[in-house]
Amino acid sequence: MTVKMSNLRVLKQSLRIYSKCILPRPLFHCPHRAFSFSTPTLANRALIFRSNGNPAEVLSAVTYPTLPPPSPDQINISFRLSPINPSDINVIEGVYPSKPSATTFFCQGHQLENPVFVPGNEGLAEVTDIGKNVKGFKKGDWVILAIQQGGTWSSAKTVDAKDVIKLPSSFSEVNAATITVNPPTAYNMLHDFIDLKEGDWIMQNGANSALGQAVIQIAARKGWKTLNFVRSRNDFDALKSHLSALGATQVVTYDELSDKAFRDKVKGWTGGKIRLMLNGVSGRVTTAMMRHLGQDAHIVSYGAMSKEPLSFPTSLFIFKNITAHGFWQSRWYHNKSKEEREQLMENLAEMKLQEPEHEIVTLPGTKSDEDTAKSVQNLISKMSEGKYGKKVLLKIEGPAD
Amino acid sequence: MTVKMSNLRVLKQSLRIYSKCILPRPLFHCPHRAFSFSTPTLANRALIFRSNGNPAEVLSAVTYPTLPPPSPDQINISFRLSPINPSDINVIEGVYPSKPSATTFFCQGHQLENPVFVPGNEGLAEVTDIGKNVKGFKKGDWVILAIQQGGTWSSAKTVDAKDVIKLPSSFSEVNAATITVNPPTAYNMLHDFIDLKEGDWIMQNGANSALGQAVIQIAARKGWKTLNFVRSRNDFDALKSHLSALGATQVVTYDELSDKAFRDKVKGWTGGKIRLMLNGVSGRVTTAMMRHLGQDAHIVSYGAMSKEPLSFPTSLFIFKNITAHGFWQSRWYHNKSKEEREQLMENLAEMKLQEPEHEIVTLPGTKSDEDTAKSVQNLISKMSEGKYGKKVLLKIEGPAD
Repeated sequence: MTVKMSNLRVLKQSLRIYSKCILPRPLFHCPHRAFSFSTPTLANRALIFRSNGNPAEVLSAVTYPTLPPPSPDQINISFRLSPINPSDINVIEGVYPSKPSATTFFCQGHQLENPVFVPGNEGLAEVTDIGKNVKGFKKGDWVILAIQQGGTWSSAKTVDAKDVIKLPSSFSEVNAATITVNPPTAYNMLHDFIDLKEGDWIMQNGANSALGQAVIQIAARKGWKTLNFVRSRNDFDALKSHLSALGATQVVTYDELSDKAFRDKVKGWTGGKIRLMLNGVSGRVTTAMMRHLGQDAHIVSYGAMSKEPLSFPTSLFIFKNITAHGFWQSRWYHNKSKEEREQLMENLAEMKLQEPEHEIVTLPGTKSDEDTAKSVQNLISKMSEGKYGKKVLLKIEGPAD
Repeated sequence: MTVKMSNLRVLKQSLRIYSKCILPRPLFHCPHRAFSFSTPTLANRALIFRSNGNPAEVLSAVTYPTLPPPSPDQINISFRLSPINPSDINVIEGVYPSKPSATTFFCQGHQLENPVFVPGNEGLAEVTDIGKNVKGFKKGDWVILAIQQGGTWSSAKTVDAKDVIKLPSSFSEVNAATITVNPPTAYNMLHDFIDLKEGDWIMQNGANSALGQAVIQIAARKGWKTLNFVRSRNDFDALKSHLSALGATQVVTYDELSDKAFRDKVKGWTGGKIRLMLNGVSGRVTTAMMRHLGQDAHIVSYGAMSKEPLSFPTSLFIFKNITAHGFWQSRWYHNKSKEEREQLMENLAEMKLQEPEHEIVTLPGTKSDEDTAKSVQNLISKMSEGKYGKKVLLKIEGPAD
């Protein structure tokens, strides 16, 4: 009985969405399939926002019908696990430079009166239906999106086949759900800028992040040595043990940078020949780290956790011949072919990365949209307060599940 | 009579230098040629310093004998014109990262008791004698030094043939004397980092410097457009006319950077596609300039006149795919072959660069070392006070001239 009540509420909410679609034809007559008022199967659910702001205020949930069969060049996919990444929160807040496109899939191709956005950049999906022109996929294949801000916080969607990457079968479900951003960012930053040789040294900040841990593992597999900086903390020894077990060569805190003797220590470890620095922090500590770089080294930035700029003594560029780059995995996917993307996933599968510490949070289909939205809002609030050490992976069930 | 007195004083001073050489053999017995006390021909003069400091305090002048014939792989050269560049002053002050080697040529190969340094990185010399193994040079050839801090503030010296670059005959004397640093720095920064196409835009600061003017001229010859930033000044219109006549596409002051409408103006000129930024200033204004760069642009730094660091919003690296490099002509010379160096000089000769505004200051051989040193100290003091708009080229005569 409760379930039925809940389903009725779900239906009402989805009608509120539907009534905002500008429909040139009778309500629920969509291009690919006709729905009547009495028969929509509200099998799916998505988290949405209509305008940027605090997720606790702007995030809501909606239900929508079973997907119609895909167009010839499209496939239907169903999401299995969708992480909540910090950048997803930035997108909702409107402080991330790339924004999701206004979503129309609730309306099956019709335009919505007011734009609706589905967050989520990363996630593991399964192919459920295949357009007649599409080659190289079969039902049940695991895929990830190659486009950014594809709206992975939903149970299912129709996508262009060219915008997905088929995964090799050797990934675990959790690894596959977290393979879109951090591991390829780590892999490409380590490969695309300089040709590292066995025994070469790399330095990174934010080394305990998901990305930092991927860097440590990939470097260790390749025989490259890592000098890893983390914030000072009470459980430093435990963190150091954890990162060392992953393959970190040295783990130190930023506090060491103010110690004069540290310079000699680094020279002793590296011979003064650190060739690559990966930066996700920027600000003062990162400038201090640069002093330890070797001649002709490269700095690759992928983030600025400190929210401070990245400041260089100009002499470092001129006399030490340092080169500074940025890396953005979304641009990489955009610039590369289907074959290159699939090869990257094969390369990553070979790395056999440890699953990130995670918690799978199921959003049951039996819950109302309001309750579902509330759950996610609470999760994000806790994450923003730093109360979640683990990566949260959403399992978004449709109401019909 | 005055001349004789002066020559006597010169002789006494040089003896003071000689007496500090640690000579395993009798005084003035040098490896290649023997001098006796009564017959040294003190034909040459150099400016020297013994320790770093304010040039007005540490700079002095010395005289030294005619050069002995060169060893098999060496040549003797006589300097015709030697500029005083700002970096020369920094070298004397000890704030430049590359230092001249302690000079021994006063002692014809013997070690000096206390190190003596001859300043001067740039200058035009003429070949006066050639070692028997040396190919490709003849007496009278014009050459410049390919090694940094070669001690050009002297009338003559013996150098390794591999350390000089023969110039094409089409340079004027002033162009040849100022060809070592700025024109090749401009040429290489414009060619070594990206492949510019006709009509592409370049942005630079410090555009009225010798280097900036070389950039403007080379870019104009190649059909590349330049957006040139200079400091606000009373004679801005005159400067703008001068730079425009050299080929500058746009000349603006840093003040424009704080004007919101300036962004649209730059977009109107460049289509938002500035591909290369050359930086010799760093600091806040340079960061403000970066906002006008196009996607995938490169920043090449060759100096930091502001003495401030170069600060980047990290997002510029990540989302705009900016790459930042440094350039140092001394490193270029060090890494390149004889053929590549000579080809560079041929390329520069083709550019037919305007001679920099200059003043030739002769240091007559008839003057004493004290008076000679005083003249140069005064020149440098005036330059440091910004009282010299023109480049100063020293013509250092030997006392026997």
